[in-house]
Amino acid sequence: MIVYDAIVRKRDTRSFADRPVPDDVLDRILQAGRMAGSARAAEPVRLVVLRDADRRAELAACGNSTTHMLSAPLVIALVLVPEFGQVGAPFTLFRGPFDAGRAAQNMMLAAWEEGISSCPASMHDEAAAAQVLALPAGHYVANVIAFGYPEGADPTTGTRPRMAAAEYIHWESW
Amino acid sequence: MIVYDAIVRKRDTRSFADRPVPDDVLDRILQAGRMAGSARAAEPVRLVVLRDADRRAELAACGNSTTHMLSAPLVIALVLVPEFGQVGAPFTLFRGPFDAGRAAQNMMLAAWEEGISSCPASMHDEAAAAQVLALPAGHYVANVIAFGYPEGADPTTGTRPRMAAAEYIHWESW
Repeated sequence: MIVYDAIVRKRDTRSFADRPVPDDVLDRILQAGRMAGSARAAEPVRLVVLRDADRRAELAACGNSTTHMLSAPLVIALVLVPEFGQVGAPFTLFRGPFDAGRAAQNMMLAAWEEGISSCPASMHDEAAAAQVLALPAGHYVANVIAFGYPEGADPTTGTRPRMAAAEYIHWESW
Repeated sequence: MIVYDAIVRKRDTRSFADRPVPDDVLDRILQAGRMAGSARAAEPVRLVVLRDADRRAELAACGNSTTHMLSAPLVIALVLVPEFGQVGAPFTLFRGPFDAGRAAQNMMLAAWEEGISSCPASMHDEAAAAQVLALPAGHYVANVIAFGYPEGADPTTGTRPRMAAAEYIHWESW
């Protein structure tokens, strides 16, 4: 699959087949996250991999709209280490989550090439999520991604509604 | 180029040849950003494309370590619209920049497939950057990416040092 096609055809799904992600595929997904660049090469992101169904349910309880974490055989939480996750100036705030987004997209695209779809889940109760994952003080869950083989209609045939390019793109100035 | 290879071989560069990015390639880079998913499909990200050298220099003055924005023929600022960019609870703070990171990685990978390398630049003076781009009140620059054909050594042969997988990945719990 060429990169551009993977990017523009990727479609997130929230229903997953009862079929595990093979270990070699998991290795590639994790490596894709690890190789993502970061501001000043500071590497603020860490991953917590959840495959156990009870563990996935515990973490799913920390967010709204997380039922897809129950059927997904693989859930990966992106954690920010303290110096990036703490509330401070916008620059500090933005850097960690931005880098987590880069790592997440790498993982989602690598998975997509393997026929695995994915969907993020936000942890609305951030403190509870940190507790479930037993994070050290000051660590934050930037986001959680659920992965699995899509169930139901072929996701590549679905629509991907996006705002018009003219609204999305500005030239030289806002 | 297959997706996994693009991801793990991508290397950011900060030196660019004096060669413009063709319009059709630019179209694909922008489309790659536009097709990135977002939390609740809220689409909090917008792009401002800068190719004019004076405009790039004005924006580069708003951050440290931004000299690569001067030689890069293409600079794209990722802007967050107000409801996502404002300071608030961690959930709100994280969502916009995380989605901007997803869009940025899509654009950087699509560019890489075309032989174009890239490197982010943080805007340390966020208010000045918003002023240069003439952003409406409450809009934030999440990050800026400089793109161009790499100058000097082939970037695919360079090293990409990352922390060990054992430090990066945790299993079932921290």
